[in-house]
Amino acid sequence: MPTRLAQLMTPALVLDEARMLRNVTRLERHLQPLGVAIRPHLKTVKSVDAARRILGSRRGPATISTLKEAEEFAAAGITDLLYGVGIATAKLPRVLALRAAGCDLALTLDSIGQAEAVAAAARQAGDAIPVLIEIDSDGHRSGLDPADPRLIAIGRILHEGGATLRGVVTHAGESYGVSGAEALAAFAERERLAAVTAAEHLRAAGLPCPVVSVGSTPTAHFARDLAGVTEVRAGVYVFFDLVMAGIGVCTPDDIALSVLATVIGHQEERGWIMVDAGWMAMSRDRGTAAQAVDQFYGLVCDIDGRPYPDLVLKAANQEHGIVALRPGSQAALPDLPLGAVMRILPNHACATAAQFEGYEVLPADGTPLTHWPRFRGW
Amino acid sequence: MPTRLAQLMTPALVLDEARMLRNVTRLERHLQPLGVAIRPHLKTVKSVDAARRILGSRRGPATISTLKEAEEFAAAGITDLLYGVGIATAKLPRVLALRAAGCDLALTLDSIGQAEAVAAAARQAGDAIPVLIEIDSDGHRSGLDPADPRLIAIGRILHEGGATLRGVVTHAGESYGVSGAEALAAFAERERLAAVTAAEHLRAAGLPCPVVSVGSTPTAHFARDLAGVTEVRAGVYVFFDLVMAGIGVCTPDDIALSVLATVIGHQEERGWIMVDAGWMAMSRDRGTAAQAVDQFYGLVCDIDGRPYPDLVLKAANQEHGIVALRPGSQAALPDLPLGAVMRILPNHACATAAQFEGYEVLPADGTPLTHWPRFRGW
Repeated sequence: MPTRLAQLMTPALVLDEARMLRNVTRLERHLQPLGVAIRPHLKTVKSVDAARRILGSRRGPATISTLKEAEEFAAAGITDLLYGVGIATAKLPRVLALRAAGCDLALTLDSIGQAEAVAAAARQAGDAIPVLIEIDSDGHRSGLDPADPRLIAIGRILHEGGATLRGVVTHAGESYGVSGAEALAAFAERERLAAVTAAEHLRAAGLPCPVVSVGSTPTAHFARDLAGVTEVRAGVYVFFDLVMAGIGVCTPDDIALSVLATVIGHQEERGWIMVDAGWMAMSRDRGTAAQAVDQFYGLVCDIDGRPYPDLVLKAANQEHGIVALRPGSQAALPDLPLGAVMRILPNHACATAAQFEGYEVLPADGTPLTHWPRFRGW
Repeated sequence: MPTRLAQLMTPALVLDEARMLRNVTRLERHLQPLGVAIRPHLKTVKSVDAARRILGSRRGPATISTLKEAEEFAAAGITDLLYGVGIATAKLPRVLALRAAGCDLALTLDSIGQAEAVAAAARQAGDAIPVLIEIDSDGHRSGLDPADPRLIAIGRILHEGGATLRGVVTHAGESYGVSGAEALAAFAERERLAAVTAAEHLRAAGLPCPVVSVGSTPTAHFARDLAGVTEVRAGVYVFFDLVMAGIGVCTPDDIALSVLATVIGHQEERGWIMVDAGWMAMSRDRGTAAQAVDQFYGLVCDIDGRPYPDLVLKAANQEHGIVALRPGSQAALPDLPLGAVMRILPNHACATAAQFEGYEVLPADGTPLTHWPRFRGW
């Protein structure tokens, strides 16, 4: 077992546990005075060990994006789960099996057809499946406008049809395109208002709405008032990444995840350092391409995690990466000889982590490296 | 076990075996009269079952991009392997272990430092590790210019230092940016010329160069003359994808790989159909974005694999996909109700396949679905 980073086979996925714990604490401290609980989205980590660092020994609450995540986390005792993707009704037998085994799995939906199918499945199984109706707060993807009359119709189908109407859920995914504290606070308010308005419509129609669930990593950190909200969801906040740094939610120093890579060659006349981390390691995510500072496929740091000025993973083939200075940079190319090892911060932590079978963890207490397995699939 | 596509849990990775076999045969038939062997790049398939469809019962030749691939394929009897990524010298113990177990694993390198390290390891192990020197034919990534004097220096270090100088290798990766038969044929000639020139320089210096290895999927299909070349490498040709279709190497009808997805909702006023395949299923690859026809995150087909006019996976979140008409299209949005199932052709087969744990195979003989596991990691 490697005990130090320099002993790892590259590419490897390095997780700085101290940074991760700091990120987890930061959001808890921000939300506590606002009076809401966090329902962390475990799609980012896909690891029981990582989930335990976020939740401690608690059974939740947590959010998941696949039934595979629900099955893996439930088997590990994390059983208070919200499935945040609109339910494909062909998946209801798996949902019922999870619930019959003791998992409090709640569903998300936004159509009359889904509501009818879930209510029918609930009646047939004698299990009042809990459901949150998805609200669209920013035109990002799924969900109903809070004023859409189908909101009440769906609520009624669920409530009167054998399911449990647990509340409303929204995700301000467009907040990823907004930068700075003021703009993000305004976005958080927009997200809150959409969810609270929808909840009020349901209640005005005589329907229950105990849960009002909002969240995205950017809005969660910049919300100033969460009146009427009962829980906040966020996922990538535990690791952070360059996309989040690019909109001012964190700094590169907060990013807990990096890819360890080794120099395998040089193209001196082009100013290129070739490394053994390409897109198979970093993912194809180019989420900073549209931001003010394009980080290409990642920002290059030394083995201790300190960024080199303007050094990025400029291009990526499947297993080859090209490290170079950002175009126009006046910085000097660092001397990274054959065999030198570096850490590359990712654009998008969820996507990069998904390329690996596990985390090589630098423990917060300074003890030797440890390994946390990840799972994947659906 | 699901026997039909409609019974699969989505998202799922569907492989049309008949198309794959047709693609494999097509390149064999093109190269046979040119007098060269194919050394298929198995980084695309990462599956022993798929490799067996390409190689039959033969032990190779094949190309790999990670030592994990070498270990998996060698364990399955595929032992004539070229590792196509410049060797990180810290990986030499794993190379030697593979070779000691009977795998004829050849290495790629392009620097004096690597050559010295490999020669030293060869002497120490008493194993004349075979090496190909990488040549740069198009400024794509690694490799030496054929006229670079280091070519001879490296050849000498290897040949006189205890390793085996097996030849030269080049990959015209920039051919992915070229479109049409004439331009691709010219690119293939450029690739051939670089490799053959380098081989001639080595031989003129009294050094051996039995292998002259060239290849990329585009150049392999359009090469008209391969005089002096001994083998051609290609990877994605077995599956093909939208990037290859975009430059005229194949048509969408040749693409053997697709992602099965289910409708989970609609945003009628925006013309969006929401599906349960996002970037976790498709990958973040947007390789067609810079082509004449942008396929966004993939081209949508019916369950039998026939493309819907202008229907694409317009946007992708982790587990949500937004299916919509291509901007400006006059086509009608097809009626795909909740629960409807579709197949989405990928931009980049290597990247999409890597998101899955295995292939759901539509066998060429029309028998029920079968499953081929994939591996990953390094």
